[in-house]
Amino acid sequence: MAFSLEKSIEILERTPEVLFTMLHGISDDWTSNNEGEETWSVFDVIGHLIHGEKTDWVLRAEIILSENSVKKFEPFNRFAQFEESKDKTLPELLDEFKLLRNKNIDRLLSKNVTEKDFDKTGIHPAFGEVKLSQLLSTWVTHDLDHISQIARIMAKQYKEDVGPWIEYLKILRQ
Amino acid sequence: MAFSLEKSIEILERTPEVLFTMLHGISDDWTSNNEGEETWSVFDVIGHLIHGEKTDWVLRAEIILSENSVKKFEPFNRFAQFEESKDKTLPELLDEFKLLRNKNIDRLLSKNVTEKDFDKTGIHPAFGEVKLSQLLSTWVTHDLDHISQIARIMAKQYKEDVGPWIEYLKILRQ
Repeated sequence: MAFSLEKSIEILERTPEVLFTMLHGISDDWTSNNEGEETWSVFDVIGHLIHGEKTDWVLRAEIILSENSVKKFEPFNRFAQFEESKDKTLPELLDEFKLLRNKNIDRLLSKNVTEKDFDKTGIHPAFGEVKLSQLLSTWVTHDLDHISQIARIMAKQYKEDVGPWIEYLKILRQ
Repeated sequence: MAFSLEKSIEILERTPEVLFTMLHGISDDWTSNNEGEETWSVFDVIGHLIHGEKTDWVLRAEIILSENSVKKFEPFNRFAQFEESKDKTLPELLDEFKLLRNKNIDRLLSKNVTEKDFDKTGIHPAFGEVKLSQLLSTWVTHDLDHISQIARIMAKQYKEDVGPWIEYLKILRQ
């Protein structure tokens, strides 16, 4: 499937609603536990998604689309959420993510990106030159990766409870 | 986390809404493609979930809770959806799943299951004796497994588009 801005927005605009539907009002046991040492809880993942909205995707797209000659991205902090989410509740994080995501989609759409822009580039701290289409398809895929991860973290809370069925549940053995 | 009927229902009742939110109205490219030979599309997965509602979870719980001395489960057909979904659309499948799931939750709740029932058993075609709590926690985990799979199938449609970022996106390398 070739990159499409419209089809990307279809996913990006749904993610906050998907997370709200999955998580709003459920017991803390599902969202505050992780998959074991050095892994993230659902709460941590939502904080990470928020940090991405604040410092990553649209800001990088704007660098690529800008007239500046310096197109270098700032490195992304993968651990910022542990500090930033500290005094917040999960419903607060879900609302904050939704608000930021909606603003960022509007901000991206306001650039009137066309196919001619897809090959424009910026400089990633680790990968060097990357295209706008690669950045935006990564934004989409990153959402889906974390939805998948959240389902896995939750499933693992029942790892000991499923008994012999663990044989059929790949998700519990990842 | 120990098995809890209430916490299980929290997930089971959300799954049709989660899938509706993720999938309703999105382009066919996301839902009709699969991950490669012998794998399922999103459309196939929803058909599989429907077949589970019709022939698996609650029916097996009823066998366990029944007064019958024969507690053997029917084997589950993992390929039934290819025939059953043939002439249906994705929105039709999403609605059908929601309807069946809601009915099945009501059917389960009508049994007034208590903790004393959790250790009651039935006979699984492959595993032999299994407990009600294992069946019900597998139902929940199975939902989450397929939500995770659906996100992965969709993400893979952009596998070629993300460029070097594939290194950070585990979901694309599964």
